[in-house]
Amino acid sequence: MKHQLKLGIPKGSLEKATIDLFSKAGWKIAVSSRNYFPSIDDPEIVCSLIRAQEMARYIESGVLDLGLTGYDWILENNSDVEVLSDLIYSKVSTRKARWVLAVPEDSPIKAIEDCRGKTISTELVNFTKKYFQDKNIPVNVEFSWGATEAKVVEGLVDAIVEVTETGSTIKAHGLKIIHTLLETNTKLLASKKSLKDPWKREKIAQIDMLLKGALNAGNMVGLKMNIPKESIERIITIIPSLTSPTIAELYNSQWLSLESVILESVAREIIPRLIDAGADGIIEYPLNKVVQKINQH
Amino acid sequence: MKHQLKLGIPKGSLEKATIDLFSKAGWKIAVSSRNYFPSIDDPEIVCSLIRAQEMARYIESGVLDLGLTGYDWILENNSDVEVLSDLIYSKVSTRKARWVLAVPEDSPIKAIEDCRGKTISTELVNFTKKYFQDKNIPVNVEFSWGATEAKVVEGLVDAIVEVTETGSTIKAHGLKIIHTLLETNTKLLASKKSLKDPWKREKIAQIDMLLKGALNAGNMVGLKMNIPKESIERIITIIPSLTSPTIAELYNSQWLSLESVILESVAREIIPRLIDAGADGIIEYPLNKVVQKINQH
Amino acid sequence: MKHQLKLGIPKGSLEKATIDLFSKAGWKIAVSSRNYFPSIDDPEIVCSLIRAQEMARYIESGVLDLGLTGYDWILENNSDVEVLSDLIYSKVSTRKARWVLAVPEDSPIKAIEDCRGKTISTELVNFTKKYFQDKNIPVNVEFSWGATEAKVVEGLVDAIVEVTETGSTIKAHGLKIIHTLLETNTKLLASKKSLKDPWKREKIAQIDMLLKGALNAGNMVGLKMNIPKESIERIITIIPSLTSPTIAELYNSQWLSLESVILESVAREIIPRLIDAGADGIIEYPLNKVVQKINQH
Amino acid sequence: MKHQLKLGIPKGSLEKATIDLFSKAGWKIAVSSRNYFPSIDDPEIVCSLIRAQEMARYIESGVLDLGLTGYDWILENNSDVEVLSDLIYSKVSTRKARWVLAVPEDSPIKAIEDCRGKTISTELVNFTKKYFQDKNIPVNVEFSWGATEAKVVEGLVDAIVEVTETGSTIKAHGLKIIHTLLETNTKLLASKKSLKDPWKREKIAQIDMLLKGALNAGNMVGLKMNIPKESIERIITIIPSLTSPTIAELYNSQWLSLESVILESVAREIIPRLIDAGADGIIEYPLNKVVQKINQH
Amino acid sequence: MKHQLKLGIPKGSLEKATIDLFSKAGWKIAVSSRNYFPSIDDPEIVCSLIRAQEMARYIESGVLDLGLTGYDWILENNSDVEVLSDLIYSKVSTRKARWVLAVPEDSPIKAIEDCRGKTISTELVNFTKKYFQDKNIPVNVEFSWGATEAKVVEGLVDAIVEVTETGSTIKAHGLKIIHTLLETNTKLLASKKSLKDPWKREKIAQIDMLLKGALNAGNMVGLKMNIPKESIERIITIIPSLTSPTIAELYNSQWLSLESVILESVAREIIPRLIDAGADGIIEYPLNKVVQKINQH
Amino acid sequence: MKHQLKLGIPKGSLEKATIDLFSKAGWKIAVSSRNYFPSIDDPEIVCSLIRAQEMARYIESGVLDLGLTGYDWILENNSDVEVLSDLIYSKVSTRKARWVLAVPEDSPIKAIEDCRGKTISTELVNFTKKYFQDKNIPVNVEFSWGATEAKVVEGLVDAIVEVTETGSTIKAHGLKIIHTLLETNTKLLASKKSLKDPWKREKIAQIDMLLKGALNAGNMVGLKMNIPKESIERIITIIPSLTSPTIAELYNSQWLSLESVILESVAREIIPRLIDAGADGIIEYPLNKVVQKINQH
Repeated sequence: MKHQLKLGIPKGSLEKATIDLFSKAGWKIAVSSRNYFPSIDDPEIVCSLIRAQEMARYIESGVLDLGLTGYDWILENNSDVEVLSDLIYSKVSTRKARWVLAVPEDSPIKAIEDCRGKTISTELVNFTKKYFQDKNIPVNVEFSWGATEAKVVEGLVDAIVEVTETGSTIKAHGLKIIHTLLETNTKLLASKKSLKDPWKREKIAQIDMLLKGALNAGNMVGLKMNIPKESIERIITIIPSLTSPTIAELYNSQWLSLESVILESVAREIIPRLIDAGADGIIEYPLNKVVQKINQH
Repeated sequence: MKHQLKLGIPKGSLEKATIDLFSKAGWKIAVSSRNYFPSIDDPEIVCSLIRAQEMARYIESGVLDLGLTGYDWILENNSDVEVLSDLIYSKVSTRKARWVLAVPEDSPIKAIEDCRGKTISTELVNFTKKYFQDKNIPVNVEFSWGATEAKVVEGLVDAIVEVTETGSTIKAHGLKIIHTLLETNTKLLASKKSLKDPWKREKIAQIDMLLKGALNAGNMVGLKMNIPKESIERIITIIPSLTSPTIAELYNSQWLSLESVILESVAREIIPRLIDAGADGIIEYPLNKVVQKINQH
Repeated sequence: MKHQLKLGIPKGSLEKATIDLFSKAGWKIAVSSRNYFPSIDDPEIVCSLIRAQEMARYIESGVLDLGLTGYDWILENNSDVEVLSDLIYSKVSTRKARWVLAVPEDSPIKAIEDCRGKTISTELVNFTKKYFQDKNIPVNVEFSWGATEAKVVEGLVDAIVEVTETGSTIKAHGLKIIHTLLETNTKLLASKKSLKDPWKREKIAQIDMLLKGALNAGNMVGLKMNIPKESIERIITIIPSLTSPTIAELYNSQWLSLESVILESVAREIIPRLIDAGADGIIEYPLNKVVQKINQH
Repeated sequence: MKHQLKLGIPKGSLEKATIDLFSKAGWKIAVSSRNYFPSIDDPEIVCSLIRAQEMARYIESGVLDLGLTGYDWILENNSDVEVLSDLIYSKVSTRKARWVLAVPEDSPIKAIEDCRGKTISTELVNFTKKYFQDKNIPVNVEFSWGATEAKVVEGLVDAIVEVTETGSTIKAHGLKIIHTLLETNTKLLASKKSLKDPWKREKIAQIDMLLKGALNAGNMVGLKMNIPKESIERIITIIPSLTSPTIAELYNSQWLSLESVILESVAREIIPRLIDAGADGIIEYPLNKVVQKINQH
Repeated sequence: MKHQLKLGIPKGSLEKATIDLFSKAGWKIAVSSRNYFPSIDDPEIVCSLIRAQEMARYIESGVLDLGLTGYDWILENNSDVEVLSDLIYSKVSTRKARWVLAVPEDSPIKAIEDCRGKTISTELVNFTKKYFQDKNIPVNVEFSWGATEAKVVEGLVDAIVEVTETGSTIKAHGLKIIHTLLETNTKLLASKKSLKDPWKREKIAQIDMLLKGALNAGNMVGLKMNIPKESIERIITIIPSLTSPTIAELYNSQWLSLESVILESVAREIIPRLIDAGADGIIEYPLNKVVQKINQH
Repeated sequence: MKHQLKLGIPKGSLEKATIDLFSKAGWKIAVSSRNYFPSIDDPEIVCSLIRAQEMARYIESGVLDLGLTGYDWILENNSDVEVLSDLIYSKVSTRKARWVLAVPEDSPIKAIEDCRGKTISTELVNFTKKYFQDKNIPVNVEFSWGATEAKVVEGLVDAIVEVTETGSTIKAHGLKIIHTLLETNTKLLASKKSLKDPWKREKIAQIDMLLKGALNAGNMVGLKMNIPKESIERIITIIPSLTSPTIAELYNSQWLSLESVILESVAREIIPRLIDAGADGIIEYPLNKVVQKINQH
């Protein structure tokens, strides 16, 4: 019988980023309005689009073998799944998102303890209930169908537990954050049962390695330059040591070619110093994947 | 102290229809992205935009005095509120919407009894659980965060309970309906506590009367024509008898002016017959409101 | 067996105007992306959305009983159908559209005779071929899949035959019109076979009457005013005579009430004169339908 | 030679409202992307689309005869034109807009006098300069090319003079209003030279009357009901007295027909009282125009 | 006189993909709504936007020298042109598109022979007529102006001949495919006359080579890694043999640098094996063009 | 105290291009509707979005340290700032934009001297006034709030001074260009005061170098190929000499690897010649930055 891996793609805000990441990792996924199952150019994989909120549920039950979703929704569903790796790929930043307790600027609630007996609206009901129980603060937690910030502004509830990256949306609603309950980011997670099947285990490891390779590449660039032989020592000290540069002699020349992979944010710092140190013809080029032994523990 | 009524406008699919209905009833509501409270041209009313799913909850608790939402969500929240009147104002039809049990065309589930032990996905979790309990059919009901039809097509669950007007979306997903659990339409509902306050009671009655007047007008038209005196008996038999027509003598003339309010779908049937019967200069004009004693019991 | 009329709604540029016209005539049609057959609130009618270009073809063959399309496409298909009435309902104007011969400003073609031996691009191939044959001017007529103006600007063909209302699009392409081949507007047309069936014949007549009534109403308004009895003669001369006004005596008063239906473009001219002549409390109100014996020959 | 009136339509935020108002007044204006001159169904009028900011300039110079623009821009251009009438037709409200002085919540500027020596950004440079000069407060006024609120938030300037209706946008930027410089609304204005031409004067008066008639109609509705003869006195006291109602005896009946034109916001108040007082079959219908002698001074 | 090549860009669904391909091949094409002729950064080329349906017609006649269109439309126009190369660049897949015969699920037509005497709607009229003639099956073929699937669903025709890539749109309409008439993909085609001009012949060859180079690059990636000298043999066997890798000695080191160009879908398979075999610092980078002698026969 | 550089990003038409350029230069800027200050991944920089028209004003006053804007707006504001470098990054072309004097095709104004006593509308009022003064041509220059071309077409003014890249918009309005007043492109400019601060001076130099590096890369590509040792001389003559290629010997082989950075428009010319000369396995890859000593004078 043909081997096949069932992969869950998170629908909605993470959908495009996930498909782009798989594209850089080497798999082309195409979503069609005509078809429930996004097509993928690997006959060994079948994709399904699943809400991030429900992903862990279907991986736990084994309906799916592998999927991506947020750590928050794994906790909310209290699902028994294997978390393989972190995939931090927010557009704006690499900060993690936070679920926070927020109240109006002029609320009498100043700290989490002041919530005693109050009504809190949130999408993350189970997690929030448990969090307050563990702290012995009795509260009334209501499920919010959306527009959670508005509810506390309009006076329908006393406080909210909402997710935010920078806090600016919460501030724009005239609210203030008084407590952080949870930090969260995207995880690659697998069914425990699937990991016991040798073929699935290896396939999952391949996907995991290449997704990480693609994610690494997003922050890195290739840098190549020509350097006079006599400047080699000085120049090597400028380039970050983690990745040893590739140096080759040039044909009939007193120059060397040096090539390295570095963080993009480092490139902007060292290029002026490399020019000062004698390097010339510096080019920087984009990368699809960076895979190193050092990443694969 | 100033009297004030807190009114909940259902956010989302019913929002525009509700605001249009209030406009015809005589209140201009304007929603602004800058403001949580839609403005209304009546200082005695404060509006809030609330999800249909959550409306009954806030009316029950008295945070709101009055609101509109579907019968389904009143049942789902099991809320103790006063239902004032039916407001059937779907765009396409005046049919009620239905929550139905649907399965794939080729499912082994042929009747509701076959759901025993199966997993069902729905947005209406509490109602569905209770419905199956009352029938003594044990099922596993899961909350669906949306795209419910897709879940059963993709094989994630065995059946769904979903809302539909014409059934065409369900059919387009390759599913078939095997049972209807609930018929639903929009209701005007009030807080029981608010109805005990005389000022609020009267204000609510005013809104109720004018909403009904506007709703009536949506299906009705004014019809006006000139008729020769000798044809009066014949013509009156053509016009539906519910509403007695207004007939006036014309100045210096053997003609009468006849005016009536009728259902728009009746107009297209009787206009050719009125012309045959001798009427002339028939005009039909639109109405904003139709208020009759007969509606106000 | 149940009687049923098959009605073709022209898809595309006429679609919305047609549905709006039927709505004012008394039939609510709803187009759904889920369904090929638009729904209509009359169980005796089944609607289909059909390209204007193909409408006459399917009415001729009897697949449809009744439909709306342009006179141009009836000629292009050379269809043997019954044309019932003109429905001029362009948004911008009540001008008819024209199919014209257009060439670049600096073309050597100055008149239709100069097309001898030239290549002409058009969507209306059959009609254009016949038109030139009848004039004994041999030309090469090519079917254009769209963007016809661009072809002559780019030098791919020598001239085009294209449809225009105001000529401004043609002028904006730097082209000039040198000949008008055809004036066209929307027609209501029926299958000859269907008109032999008495039930269908009557149903078609009903639709025809009410569409005309709705179309009339689009250009007309109701006008109502109070006038002193002594001014009645003077005021009646101001109001256009086609439609005799409805005049009623007021209760306990020396004033009369006068009501009339007039063209909207006339209203703006006579209202200042009516005020001068002593009328007061003039109101103008919109109409859905105007049906008069005089229209029904 | 043919008489012709050149009419300026304000481009941008007032454009749609102006075209809608002319439509209700009796003139259909169509704006085309192909043509600089919007078409109008009156051969005696030529329309131009003009920025509200520049309208008064071209009416003063006589390039245009008549136009609509805000009072603010008449003052800013210091134009010598004839203001004919107020046209208050904001969508949300009938409040006038205000140009206000705004500063950050925590600004040291607490009153207009504190602006001494400060930099102010505004689109209304000439008016603002003059306003501060008249108060003997020396300030540096800079022209703002847009996004004026952002400039003071970002600290580029000390204060702004900006237009607002409800103040909510200014508040949403974290600013506070400390002074109102000007209230403004839309005016119909004419060239002084044009008013000396008798034909133009009369044409302008016609347009002015019908625009006002249409504007009146926007807030008013027609109300019609049947009343028992014995209730006539009581019912008449309920209906606002400004406009005397039209009362007619019904044919062979003890009922009267009563018709009146009232403010829409009054209708919602009196309909319940009319039902209580014995009226029946109350219908409310929309109006296009309301023209009364009393409006024409 | 200046040499110039006239190039046809297919308008519509292939337009963006074609412009992107030329961009990677080295020519920047910009389409402007103001200009019929897209601009291109090569003074020796003039571009025109042409419908795919009409492209072959204008290349045959020599109005254009070179262009891109589908094989289907070359056959439909029966054009005598030179086909230079295949350009398969569908977004979703590299499958060819097919023109298929489709009928409703429950149609009595089960095979192509059952079409005898039936009516078929298609955009590809000439080809379809000839195809059935060659098989001696008399049918009535009608030109379809679009929405072809709907026609057979609505019962207006018996069958359709329509283009599809995956068959999913056809299936979504409730139709089934019973025969494939033609497989098609995009071709680069040239005028036979143009190929006799030496300058044009060489320019066309240049464009052809670079388009192919860009197309190759779309599926390929550059792979670079460091390998210990002792692992060289083992690693070389992992890398596909078509393209021999570039291996260089590193400066003062026992490592080699290996670089190769491989299919992207191969990269995801071999990267885990390369890591296992001792390679390190693997980077994958995107390519604009891949030109090899082996492609140029 | 922490060092910080205030950077102005031009809002509107240059905004996206500027953010993309900074991204290639190594700084990620994210604009949020919630925040006035775009975020940037460098704690030493604070960004503001500023209209291009106002940029020079705020850099002159020192409110900003560094910014990008057009040369035209530097002149219009007559600002005393330091222009660091040219950044030509128009999408369509690398042509500079021009401010031109345009009149209707049939205008009596044939040359700039004919403007004597005429009215000219423009956004660039100060510059235009000065330009005509310097030529001793008295004109009336009016500020245009937009849609400047329309004003001269409608006859509101005699001529306009407007910006254009290709002239096609002006031509499409039926206007002709009779004079060029100014060529303009984007400049990087700094506050003179800021350049006296050593830390700011160095930071500004870093940004300047990397922006130029990114800009260079936009037109250039990396080219890599294998060549037989005996062809090395011939092949080197084909590759443009500005940048000496990097040549490396291959391991155990008679081939060399050659790598060079060239203009993209050159690549398409030389690739066919390189293949002819014996090169094989040519790949072209995209670049992020190209920084050479030669650029940094």
